[in-house]
Amino acid sequence: MPTDALSSTFAALADPTRRAILARLVSGECSVTELAAPFDMSLPAVSKHLRVLERAGLIARRRDAQWRHCRIEGGPLKQVADWTERYRHVWEERLGRLDYYLQQLKEKEKEKGHARKQRRK
Amino acid sequence: MPTDALSSTFAALADPTRRAILARLVSGECSVTELAAPFDMSLPAVSKHLRVLERAGLIARRRDAQWRHCRIEGGPLKQVADWTERYRHVWEERLGRLDYYLQQLKEKEKEKGHARKQRRK
Repeated sequence: MPTDALSSTFAALADPTRRAILARLVSGECSVTELAAPFDMSLPAVSKHLRVLERAGLIARRRDAQWRHCRIEGGPLKQVADWTERYRHVWEERLGRLDYYLQQLKEKEKEKGHARKQRRK
Repeated sequence: MPTDALSSTFAALADPTRRAILARLVSGECSVTELAAPFDMSLPAVSKHLRVLERAGLIARRRDAQWRHCRIEGGPLKQVADWTERYRHVWEERLGRLDYYLQQLKEKEKEKGHARKQRRK
């Protein structure tokens, strides 16, 4: 298991079920039973995912009478966003180069079309 | 091993050495030997990390004579940024509430100070 906070967050997010649980919690706190309902999964299997999310600080659980409620916690997600932000220029430069290449291609096509029209005259 | 692209990316990022490798590649393409130099790690151990990053599409490798060069690839990082962006309101609301609470606290302190001054007069 990873020991630093950011590694725990990334490891917890590396699973589609856990990401689906977070997506559900965005619309508000809910019970473990409600959370488990849309998944074709046993309650213990869902609880295991919740424990991973809780250990990474991505959710918090509270007990209310016999119910366990979960809510999403934004802190670790903000750390992921801050970390990723440092790399924004990498993909923006790449997309910028692709845009430039497509623009050049378009202009060449336009020139060719123009030359063809001139020859026909 | 995770099968969907986003899970592979998150799993690859869940390791401080792999994130340090990406941080190094931001300043430009370099050879595997150069990449390995700052790490107290064997070349095969570094190569293993590079394979995980390559499988997740976070780096690309090319062979030039006897050298293997690596460069960072922005695409999967953009997907992480896009995914995380959906949760921005979660941490911004929380920080907003904290700001409001601190503001209220400050105002109460100001009122108390004012009341003390009035009593002294």
